[in-house]
Amino acid sequence: MDRIIDGQLEELKRLILVMGGSVEKALGEAISALMNRDPAKFNTVHTIEKKINEDHLKVDQACIHLLARQGPVAGDLRLILSIVKINTDLERMGDQSVNIAYTGKDYLTRTPVPQLEQIQKMAELVRQMVKESLDSFVRGDLALAKKILMTDDEVDDLKNQIFHKLIDHIKANPQDTEASLDLILIARNLERLGDHATNIAEDVIFAFSGQDVRHGGKFGQQLG
Amino acid sequence: MDRIIDGQLEELKRLILVMGGSVEKALGEAISALMNRDPAKFNTVHTIEKKINEDHLKVDQACIHLLARQGPVAGDLRLILSIVKINTDLERMGDQSVNIAYTGKDYLTRTPVPQLEQIQKMAELVRQMVKESLDSFVRGDLALAKKILMTDDEVDDLKNQIFHKLIDHIKANPQDTEASLDLILIARNLERLGDHATNIAEDVIFAFSGQDVRHGGKFGQQLG
Repeated sequence: MDRIIDGQLEELKRLILVMGGSVEKALGEAISALMNRDPAKFNTVHTIEKKINEDHLKVDQACIHLLARQGPVAGDLRLILSIVKINTDLERMGDQSVNIAYTGKDYLTRTPVPQLEQIQKMAELVRQMVKESLDSFVRGDLALAKKILMTDDEVDDLKNQIFHKLIDHIKANPQDTEASLDLILIARNLERLGDHATNIAEDVIFAFSGQDVRHGGKFGQQLG
Repeated sequence: MDRIIDGQLEELKRLILVMGGSVEKALGEAISALMNRDPAKFNTVHTIEKKINEDHLKVDQACIHLLARQGPVAGDLRLILSIVKINTDLERMGDQSVNIAYTGKDYLTRTPVPQLEQIQKMAELVRQMVKESLDSFVRGDLALAKKILMTDDEVDDLKNQIFHKLIDHIKANPQDTEASLDLILIARNLERLGDHATNIAEDVIFAFSGQDVRHGGKFGQQLG
């Protein structure tokens, strides 16, 4: 059975995928600018983020119209509410990419410090989480969504290692405090990006199974 | 005219206010534990955050039921979607308070560094932003919501000052790197808490005026 709402939901899903692609690109450009010491490339991140913000408002308004006109229930309603939330996460992921660009620009003005390779490794894991969270959303793939929750633990471990190494570096080389702190803050931004991808995975699990796995699933309730 | 939905919306507003009160309390306890060097008090923050998480799921489910059963439109729909978002912000504010508690616990095991008074000043501003964002929500007070956007600039300035002072401190006292980084991360958490209060203020402006002030209001559209 073809319903009007199906076409509108497909269009919303398509927009969310476009936004996800933009986030991946913003993150990729920020890290590539950092690794290749190419400060001009940071500007691309700002351009992409502007596009993300435009799409963010577009999705929000489309959700409002859909809720108002179609009065969806059950699975459709859960899907739309998940889109509202995923949309918010994607917008904030754009912000985090811009934060990396700002801090990265500062970093390139200073004497380099170690741990840049680890930052790249962390960024690659996070980029994969972003991609997989959107894939799991569009395919309703619960197994993939659950896998993302595990990758997030790896990302957190990597962040802790980077933190400890850089603290040791500062102690031995206090003149490198600013550069080290830049990388610490970038690692923190990457951790946040991973957290947002995790939020998306949790929303996917909720949207497609009705199961609430947030807060350890303890207070969650199976919704029909 | 009394409508069934009015009573349910009032109940939702009440729950959001309770959550806001919990966030204020969690933040207050975390900072007081830090200032009074009372590590046991950090545990209170975790207890309060658990309550926030429970309320978070409760509000989310109530919004879903309301949307499914009442099929609200226009102002009611905007209000419910704002509540969905404010609820998300409040939950993350609970997380940030817990982050402060974790880092604060570490900090108390180290030799104290300067800037703790500035952290307290920043926390007081943020606590006020949280309170006012909820006040603006419950009263539909647009002027108050707009005031919060300005306080956020003050908070960001204070954070930058704290960052610079602590970087100078590390350079002169590299043995204090961990303690200084702890306060830097706490200042960052406070900045995030302020950002969430700002998100709430923006949602209030959207809910009660239909005006979208996010992303500088450039792409926003007046909704009827």
